[in-house]
Amino acid sequence: MATVISSGKLRGIMKLADASGKFKMMAIDQRGSMVTKLAEVLDIEKSDVEYDDVATIKTLITRLLAPNSTAVLTDPIYGHPYSLTEIPRDVALLLAYEASGYVSEGVGENERLSNPIDNWTIAKAQRAGADAIKLLAYYHPDASVPALKHQQEFVRHVGDECEKQDIPFLLELVSYALEGTTKSVEFAKQKPDLVIRSVEEFIDPSYKVDILKLEFPADLKYTEEYKESSFYAGDSAYNLNEVKEICKKLDEASTLPWVILSAGVDIEEFIENVKLAAEAGASGFLCGRAIWKDAVDFFPDINAVTQFLENEATTNFHNANAAAEAALPWFDHRHFGGAASIQLEHQSENWIQDY
Amino acid sequence: MATVISSGKLRGIMKLADASGKFKMMAIDQRGSMVTKLAEVLDIEKSDVEYDDVATIKTLITRLLAPNSTAVLTDPIYGHPYSLTEIPRDVALLLAYEASGYVSEGVGENERLSNPIDNWTIAKAQRAGADAIKLLAYYHPDASVPALKHQQEFVRHVGDECEKQDIPFLLELVSYALEGTTKSVEFAKQKPDLVIRSVEEFIDPSYKVDILKLEFPADLKYTEEYKESSFYAGDSAYNLNEVKEICKKLDEASTLPWVILSAGVDIEEFIENVKLAAEAGASGFLCGRAIWKDAVDFFPDINAVTQFLENEATTNFHNANAAAEAALPWFDHRHFGGAASIQLEHQSENWIQDY
Repeated sequence: MATVISSGKLRGIMKLADASGKFKMMAIDQRGSMVTKLAEVLDIEKSDVEYDDVATIKTLITRLLAPNSTAVLTDPIYGHPYSLTEIPRDVALLLAYEASGYVSEGVGENERLSNPIDNWTIAKAQRAGADAIKLLAYYHPDASVPALKHQQEFVRHVGDECEKQDIPFLLELVSYALEGTTKSVEFAKQKPDLVIRSVEEFIDPSYKVDILKLEFPADLKYTEEYKESSFYAGDSAYNLNEVKEICKKLDEASTLPWVILSAGVDIEEFIENVKLAAEAGASGFLCGRAIWKDAVDFFPDINAVTQFLENEATTNFHNANAAAEAALPWFDHRHFGGAASIQLEHQSENWIQDY
Repeated sequence: MATVISSGKLRGIMKLADASGKFKMMAIDQRGSMVTKLAEVLDIEKSDVEYDDVATIKTLITRLLAPNSTAVLTDPIYGHPYSLTEIPRDVALLLAYEASGYVSEGVGENERLSNPIDNWTIAKAQRAGADAIKLLAYYHPDASVPALKHQQEFVRHVGDECEKQDIPFLLELVSYALEGTTKSVEFAKQKPDLVIRSVEEFIDPSYKVDILKLEFPADLKYTEEYKESSFYAGDSAYNLNEVKEICKKLDEASTLPWVILSAGVDIEEFIENVKLAAEAGASGFLCGRAIWKDAVDFFPDINAVTQFLENEATTNFHNANAAAEAALPWFDHRHFGGAASIQLEHQSENWIQDY
């Protein structure tokens, strides 16, 4: 049976992955977390972090790491204006749609609402060179109805606009704690359920998502077998077999190709995440901080930042890419059913009339 | 001095060329000439050539040759709907804007007016995956005022639309004979003047052209030094030094990066064209028939077509690519003044407001 896909979406997805269909994408669209980190490193207030410094570190990271990637995700505020020239011709460009962070206006104080960047549109992103659009939506399936509705409508809006522009829509889902903190064995226990139920919501065709960018659905910091690892947090929520079972369930839930995100974990943990996700059926990764975060510690010493990026960070990237070799090519995901099953939506002499 | 370029245009131009800035592009957007050729090969009327046959041969040529190229130019009628899936992720997509051929309505009977494809827009091309737009405009600088105006307005319209969509505009200029035939020593003598004066018209910034796709500005069939070549036509219009001087003048006239087209000449002649053009300052080629035309002779024997494409045509492409190694990187053209001089137009925190 043929899987029908529109031409713009197909070209975009092809560009995001390598020729064998595996996503090895880097994220450098951090805004809030980058400002926080720079404030810490420079020992100043967040409000005193200068625009140029954020743009400079992003440009540097993009220049030195983009050649390792199949696609670069950046943001339109600090990233795109200065980093675009640093992205090689054969590395795709993903642009972020959402404003950094979240608000809780009109909902519970722990609930998170995502919002667009002012004056930013999918059409503008496409004109500015985007091969695909990324939206980060915070999501907790047990949030209040107003919070759920807001997030669902936001995602649906972006899905509609991406369909209009015929550009791939990559949806990133990030869970959060309604009570307590995400850095706890309690949250680690909830996480599989939160991640899988969020996926179950957004695979609905009405959202028009093409690729899911997902958290690792468990927390290896709380996994028995990693007791000897530097990242082990001192308490276990599950064992490795249970984690593998969770990954398998996530893959069963995801009727769309999915990639794994790093959420700023250390590289050792992230490589384990990629391996386990790939084993379960993920199609690669979209990773930022796990690869390059320690480079920022050296700012504003540009030479030291460069050194780190050229050495440790590049090695991190190579290791992540090696782990992603075991990933499932996107076209072999059951949503597509193999490269031979993919058929363009508009195949006729007169397709341009209705397009 | 910095050269300012918008982000969509920059990304598009980068994708069209190889990493070193040289264009090694293939054209498979032929419609009228492909139908004529298939009618001849199949020994049928042009009106009896089937849509599927044109689409099939284009798909095959794209599949087997695109991997040699930095960009593929195809058409939206027969090409795009079936060939898009054949273009590798790191090979850019150029889409043709003009309807095939020309008309002479309301102008002299030898004059040529170009027109758009019905219902086809630059915005649609961009959504459908185009990295750049190509427009072929027939042009004779001594045509009647109505003919000149029509062509100039058509080019200006496409330039405006490409600017709106922030997508590169590649303008192809093709001269013609107002009297007699282009296959004559008389026309060969006129050609340098026609090509150079046409360039002088369309480098005007009001046309918003990014790259020129030009005929070789002389005819090596009528060049003394090629007397022993298979393509020599038996009469000379100039000698090789004069041809080199003509190429130099063309390069001086072209204040924009330019590439050479093949106009269906044989590969031996085309390789000479590329060498001489590159020596004068061309940035590469956009070549169709010189590379693959003989493959069509074997249609409908798909195996024989495939054989030819995998062997002779691939060798032709490699030879053209080798000749283009001597080309001037587009960013080193005086229009840009070197990669280090290129600056994005929109560099500020708030660029998206006005974009």
